[in-house]
Amino acid sequence: MEIASMNNNDKNSSNIFTNGLLWFKSLYEKLFAKIIGIAKQFKKIGKDDPRRVIHSLKVGVALTLVSLFYYFQPLYNGFGVSTMWAIMTVVVVFEFSVGATLGKGLNRGMATLLAGALGVGAHYLASASGKVVEPILLALFVFLQAFATTFIRFFPQVKARYDYGMLIFILTFCLVSISGFRVDEIVDMAHKRLSTILIGASVCVIISIFVCPVWAGEDLHKLVANNMEKLGKFLEGFGDEIFKSAEVEESKDAKKSLIEYKSVLNSKNAEETLANFARWEPGHGQFKYRHPWRQYLKIGGLIRQCACRIDALNGYINSEIKAPEEIKEKIKETSKEMSIECGKALKELSNSVRKMNLPISADEHITNAKKSAKSLNSLLKTGINNWEEINLLQVIPLATIASILTDIVICVDEIGQGVNELATLAHFKKSNNKEITTKVVEKIELSNNNIIEGSRKVHDCSSHDVVITINESNMKL
Amino acid sequence: MEIASMNNNDKNSSNIFTNGLLWFKSLYEKLFAKIIGIAKQFKKIGKDDPRRVIHSLKVGVALTLVSLFYYFQPLYNGFGVSTMWAIMTVVVVFEFSVGATLGKGLNRGMATLLAGALGVGAHYLASASGKVVEPILLALFVFLQAFATTFIRFFPQVKARYDYGMLIFILTFCLVSISGFRVDEIVDMAHKRLSTILIGASVCVIISIFVCPVWAGEDLHKLVANNMEKLGKFLEGFGDEIFKSAEVEESKDAKKSLIEYKSVLNSKNAEETLANFARWEPGHGQFKYRHPWRQYLKIGGLIRQCACRIDALNGYINSEIKAPEEIKEKIKETSKEMSIECGKALKELSNSVRKMNLPISADEHITNAKKSAKSLNSLLKTGINNWEEINLLQVIPLATIASILTDIVICVDEIGQGVNELATLAHFKKSNNKEITTKVVEKIELSNNNIIEGSRKVHDCSSHDVVITINESNMKL
Repeated sequence: MEIASMNNNDKNSSNIFTNGLLWFKSLYEKLFAKIIGIAKQFKKIGKDDPRRVIHSLKVGVALTLVSLFYYFQPLYNGFGVSTMWAIMTVVVVFEFSVGATLGKGLNRGMATLLAGALGVGAHYLASASGKVVEPILLALFVFLQAFATTFIRFFPQVKARYDYGMLIFILTFCLVSISGFRVDEIVDMAHKRLSTILIGASVCVIISIFVCPVWAGEDLHKLVANNMEKLGKFLEGFGDEIFKSAEVEESKDAKKSLIEYKSVLNSKNAEETLANFARWEPGHGQFKYRHPWRQYLKIGGLIRQCACRIDALNGYINSEIKAPEEIKEKIKETSKEMSIECGKALKELSNSVRKMNLPISADEHITNAKKSAKSLNSLLKTGINNWEEINLLQVIPLATIASILTDIVICVDEIGQGVNELATLAHFKKSNNKEITTKVVEKIELSNNNIIEGSRKVHDCSSHDVVITINESNMKL
Repeated sequence: MEIASMNNNDKNSSNIFTNGLLWFKSLYEKLFAKIIGIAKQFKKIGKDDPRRVIHSLKVGVALTLVSLFYYFQPLYNGFGVSTMWAIMTVVVVFEFSVGATLGKGLNRGMATLLAGALGVGAHYLASASGKVVEPILLALFVFLQAFATTFIRFFPQVKARYDYGMLIFILTFCLVSISGFRVDEIVDMAHKRLSTILIGASVCVIISIFVCPVWAGEDLHKLVANNMEKLGKFLEGFGDEIFKSAEVEESKDAKKSLIEYKSVLNSKNAEETLANFARWEPGHGQFKYRHPWRQYLKIGGLIRQCACRIDALNGYINSEIKAPEEIKEKIKETSKEMSIECGKALKELSNSVRKMNLPISADEHITNAKKSAKSLNSLLKTGINNWEEINLLQVIPLATIASILTDIVICVDEIGQGVNELATLAHFKKSNNKEITTKVVEKIELSNNNIIEGSRKVHDCSSHDVVITINESNMKL
């Protein structure tokens, strides 16, 4: 009996041991998989936008620089504990883009200056009124100021640009006016705090502008151009997709590129944030100081409107169209042309925004799309003979597609007008039109150099004409 | 001559005086108008959401309470300059909604605790390595920590919920580890700072929960319900508007209520922010702790999809429809019914979400809308005889409207399913269905009380049946 029970005990303990080992192994494996997953995500986030890695490095450098104030005795003697404020400023002010950093830095600096001055004033006023009244008066000041400033933060204009400044205003006013109740050298304190904050903010601004800067304005510029391109891609692809027979297998990539437009629908917030930041930025690269950022928001709105129509159109991609072949063929051609011309126009507009060239050939594509819309209309009015045989129900999907496409042509026209306005406001340059020139050159490659020279001059003239007509069309807007 | 020149001088000086007066007057008037304008905006912002005034008052009270630490000697003796951190915490943590305040407070508390502990560790590690290596090691720690934490802030999951905590983590780690280089009682400092931050955060959380709380969850709940109602209003109004002759003057109010849906298109960001805050909130009122806030986002997405279709529909409101009267009449009735039934369904769904009752009659409206869509289809297939005489171009706008409306019926059906899922997840109650019961009661008002009692029982049973079918339909989803 004893041996059996001992055997049992042995078995049990070895079981427990094996179970424990297994549990430990599975835990280890889970943990390992988790770590691998996180590492992969790290890599992906860095790969998606390498500027993120650079930004993190920049923050590290800025903080290390500012913390030098603590280590070096002469610097520390100058500012003392106030050095803390420099570190705090760097941590809070250093943002991803130059505009955001500048906006926060200016907000913090101005608010500290203003609230510091008011705080000192409040402190003197209160201390002049006697030991008993002083705390009551100070508490009243703090309450009133906090109430008023918090309420002002709800103003939309203030919220968009000065929210952070308002927060710092409350903070500094409270700290300065209340600390004054204890610390006698209040002016000295306010002065030290302000200078350390200025040092911190300057470090942020300088590093963010001069070391691999990330410009919010440039991001906005690219975002709007990319959004136009996404819609253009969809429309070009749609022309091919919609009338394809259902049996043809589509490649996954093609489908993916068609769905890309969906991100455009929710781009409003990103655009507004970037535009707000961009307005703080100094001139950089192709963008002057007062670049018309608002116009991008206007174009963005038109693009979203167009994306909404496209979303309605997207519902028809996988629907089978049963209309008789004859009608299908006739409507197909013009619809396809409308869609493809709109797509080309959007791509051209996107390109012209990206390169800041005048959108010369886009107008042509829009005119073509409008012509197709007209010819579709007249086709529907007169061109088809055997209406008697048609089941209206079968024609409706086609008619709807044509109708939504007509709407899209109008949208694209409006986007074109918006881009033309932007081109005037931001003084877009004449395009070099290298591609067109190249074609001309190819044709007359065999001729002598003089002729090539001539063709270039002719081309320059014609593009100049286009500039004028575009400006005129803008005058009418 | 002399007299004349003197006269001239007199005239000149009196002219300058009058001009100066006029200038001063116009400046005064401009200033006055500006002040009036700002005052009006103050009033409007307060009137739009009176909770803003209450929130501002709450911030004032919280700050005044915390500043008491400075005024009362015994309290001040305990914490000293660290009291500053309590004020700072209140200013930065106190947000409009309970969820945002709680989220920030918890983030700040946890990040301070963690970073404080790590900072103390870093300090000891550095100081054990000798006077020369210490600053180098500390600088290295600061750099590595700032780099890693800043990069982690780019993770979408972290950005959504723990962004503020990450910021505070960098800040506290730097302050504690670097200050340790100077202040010897580093543990004492970290302890004081943590307790003042906890006091500040607690004051915020307590005031924000117990004094007129603003729940982000409730706001999200109402936002989604309101958005559904806006679409419902449009669709109900559309049924009347679209086939009205162009000459009938529309009231401005009616037009305004039709355009209300446009705000729905850009609601994604607000919904996501509110859902993020709501997840921090404890159970309150009708909402339990783990209320399915994600489901609201799903419904919100479906609502926006529907709003997109409605935006496409909106283009046809002012277009003149020239189709022959006979066809117009026939299509009109069914289209109108589809639109109105969809509108009613959305309004009913909105109501059921708002009151957290099961959406009983919405299913009925959706079924009706589907029936209308079907009958419209068969009408188009067979019902109209004289196709030969029809100009297809004239029918297209009608056909497009019908086609988009069919899409909308599908969208509304999906929204209905989403709300049903929500009803199951959040355990919506059986509706009292007072209105229906009232009608039944009215009909049998003349009978005796027993019969009324009976009708109520019957009604209760039937609504119970509906509960079961809804649950079953959810099982299939």
